Amino acid sequence: MNFLFSIFLTLFIIVISESKHVPKNTCKEILGDELIKEIWSYEKVKNVILDYVLKGDFKSKTYDELSKFVDKFGARPSGSKVLEDSIDYMIELTRKEGISDIVTEELKVSHWVRGEEKIAMLEPRNKDIALLGLGGSISTPPKGITAEVIIFNSFDELEAADEADIAGKIVVYDPIFTVYGDTVAYRSQGASKASAKGAVASLVRSVTPYSLYTPHTGSQVYSEDITPIPTAAITLEDADLIRRMYDRGQKIILNIKMSSTYDVKISRNTLIDWKGSENPEKLVIVSGHIDSWDVGQGAMDDGGGLFISWAAPVILNRLNLKARRTIRTIFWTAEELGLTGAYAYEKAHRNESHNINFIMESDEGTFAPLGLVVAGTQEAKCIIAEILKLFIDINASKLIEDDSPGSDIAVIIKTGVPGASLYNANEKYFWYHHTEADTMNVESPEELDLGTAFWTAVAYIIADLSIDIPR
Amino acid sequence: MNFLFSIFLTLFIIVISESKHVPKNTCKEILGDELIKEIWSYEKVKNVILDYVLKGDFKSKTYDELSKFVDKFGARPSGSKVLEDSIDYMIELTRKEGISDIVTEELKVSHWVRGEEKIAMLEPRNKDIALLGLGGSISTPPKGITAEVIIFNSFDELEAADEADIAGKIVVYDPIFTVYGDTVAYRSQGASKASAKGAVASLVRSVTPYSLYTPHTGSQVYSEDITPIPTAAITLEDADLIRRMYDRGQKIILNIKMSSTYDVKISRNTLIDWKGSENPEKLVIVSGHIDSWDVGQGAMDDGGGLFISWAAPVILNRLNLKARRTIRTIFWTAEELGLTGAYAYEKAHRNESHNINFIMESDEGTFAPLGLVVAGTQEAKCIIAEILKLFIDINASKLIEDDSPGSDIAVIIKTGVPGASLYNANEKYFWYHHTEADTMNVESPEELDLGTAFWTAVAYIIADLSIDIPR
Repeated sequence: MNFLFSIFLTLFIIVISESKHVPKNTCKEILGDELIKEIWSYEKVKNVILDYVLKGDFKSKTYDELSKFVDKFGARPSGSKVLEDSIDYMIELTRKEGISDIVTEELKVSHWVRGEEKIAMLEPRNKDIALLGLGGSISTPPKGITAEVIIFNSFDELEAADEADIAGKIVVYDPIFTVYGDTVAYRSQGASKASAKGAVASLVRSVTPYSLYTPHTGSQVYSEDITPIPTAAITLEDADLIRRMYDRGQKIILNIKMSSTYDVKISRNTLIDWKGSENPEKLVIVSGHIDSWDVGQGAMDDGGGLFISWAAPVILNRLNLKARRTIRTIFWTAEELGLTGAYAYEKAHRNESHNINFIMESDEGTFAPLGLVVAGTQEAKCIIAEILKLFIDINASKLIEDDSPGSDIAVIIKTGVPGASLYNANEKYFWYHHTEADTMNVESPEELDLGTAFWTAVAYIIADLSIDIPR
Repeated sequence: MNFLFSIFLTLFIIVISESKHVPKNTCKEILGDELIKEIWSYEKVKNVILDYVLKGDFKSKTYDELSKFVDKFGARPSGSKVLEDSIDYMIELTRKEGISDIVTEELKVSHWVRGEEKIAMLEPRNKDIALLGLGGSISTPPKGITAEVIIFNSFDELEAADEADIAGKIVVYDPIFTVYGDTVAYRSQGASKASAKGAVASLVRSVTPYSLYTPHTGSQVYSEDITPIPTAAITLEDADLIRRMYDRGQKIILNIKMSSTYDVKISRNTLIDWKGSENPEKLVIVSGHIDSWDVGQGAMDDGGGLFISWAAPVILNRLNLKARRTIRTIFWTAEELGLTGAYAYEKAHRNESHNINFIMESDEGTFAPLGLVVAGTQEAKCIIAEILKLFIDINASKLIEDDSPGSDIAVIIKTGVPGASLYNANEKYFWYHHTEADTMNVESPEELDLGTAFWTAVAYIIADLSIDIPR
């Protein structure tokens, strides 16, 4: 999940549980008896899909295929050969299922490669400080940058400080995690703001509520008007250690050595179409991103989202369930370095944007599904809320309103397309996010089965309804 | 906490909650009204101690002093200069409190120093595998050991396998964590048992129920009849990855590079006496170990136990509370490499062992105190159970029966001395144990205050009772 998405995450506040907060008569009036009846007529096909995934031939398939994939490729950073190999693998895996409507679309992506990274505390005592450089960070000189630390809890504190006190120092941001969308600003903008005040490097407390001495990487962007400085994340434990030393009046001197390379490569978005029977030009999109950070396996971010989106056309093909509209699976590329794949798709397909009936993405974990986070008109939300009622038996009936759900799809949704991201039991998502701990150990076969079944059935029903999702 | 202790940990099964399971009339008969009345007469002094620590001048003192200590020294491995410096620091800290009855006793300790460590998976794909070498492990040749992996879930599986299938390979033990006392056997004995079957190295799944890609070190012992082989712990995540690859029939080849040095150094046990007013030759011992593993800060293992035991004489001195018997604080040295300090103390003080009235140790965390784990006669347990009733208001009244509580003190207790370890809310203890995550972030000022107050008051009451704890 990219930091851009996070800006919207804080908006996840209004929960419409089984339409409890959308006054029932309002939705009932908006939809009318006929449409409600039509939606409930999908209960049987929903049960067919759920049975096939939860008890039938597809049981554990999502977990098994995901684990084979991430075990084979590991991390799949933007611009790397392994990412392209993994795209080829997914295409071949899909073809083996008898699905041939597959297209890739090339685009330019950032290729930032982490080299050696090391922070040594020199004063008040010698100690190694674990770190992960932030995406796009420049290198230090080979001997590193040796400087004194100055700590800030917030940008307000930084802005209030004298430039003379910051110049030549290493700024350490030590904000306590509140919600990702707020706290991530220190990771994404910290280097630029520190540089503007004369700092020679910046470090940020990892953006997580919990740590086992776990640094978290992530993207950051240099403003155009500043001198880029090296920047990295450190663990909660070392941020707290440095804070305690600092508050005791101790002078803290660090040597930071970081190296990396940057160039531009070609990657691909992958589009898999399960063609509609009546309006094949109309699309219901399900998606996840195939790239990952360069640590861990990218199993959670976003292997899970990738595979439940892969599973939708595969399952519908196996069950011979054709919807009226086309269900398009998209594997976005280069999400982590700036939603690059999504921007390219939006640009390339802008003139057919009116054909996107609904767009879905899973990029906040594939823990037990709870429902959807939905953007769209009141009427659109009423339709989705009614469809979600069909999933009360697997506890996935919640509708959360958000004008900008998802990460990649937010790029499309802001052009006026209705859409939704997977709402799931992801309370621990940020424990693993962008770390070496993003592995298969986060994933559960049972939860992935629930997510797969839910995702496939919802997409099918929306794609098959007699009416378009209104804008 | 050392692995030897773990053998006893599995015995923690009988909980006597506020003496619920010791029939009340039995304890009542054993103790008699007079002694029960005497024990309850300590309620006032107990409240004085609790008030002083929880609301008075000592509030947060344990946390503050512990953090200053571990931030200054960091890890304090057996045989290191930093350990000796930290012992000097604790003596000075105690002297500053006006306590001068301090003795150190020298002994020989192991000095194992970790060098460079690296595991590279070469097949089925290139990947770094995080590791921590186990204490005392020998080095590999400089170019490392390159060999194929064979996996076992248990020693039974290993024993059942043909030597021809194991010879020349790297044995990976992949036992799922049940309780520490059982699972740790694969860490402590794994290398020897693998070597006996011809393995060239052994790796063990870290002994923990939870991981954020966190390797856990710990001690291991080579049997005398085998050829020592290099041995290390890997993360749950990589153990599971290797297991999945193995189960798919993939050949796994690793290159393991490890270096370390070993010699013998002199270290010291530290004895601080708060002299008794009537029977100064009689001792109630409170203790923790001052050495730690070479990762993290040793804040939990066993900085917390060290400091609540340090606090007992300091608080009694400040409150001018003299007990009938002497309260002796012991800082054990070299616990982690074989309870070396405890064995030396037992040997040196064997002829005065009859004077140890009761011996206490905290080495399983200083989370919120819940009571004591007690070894001794039925009468001894009845006395302790009655004393614990005084701590119902801080929820620390539970008595757990165990013939061999604690780690260091188990060495003394097995000679017939009654004793107890701190029972505390340490459900997550093994998440942090022997890792880089054993830092001040595990500790809480409030929980340390509760532990300090409880530990001091219990020691004082036992040391001041009109009767000895019977053997």
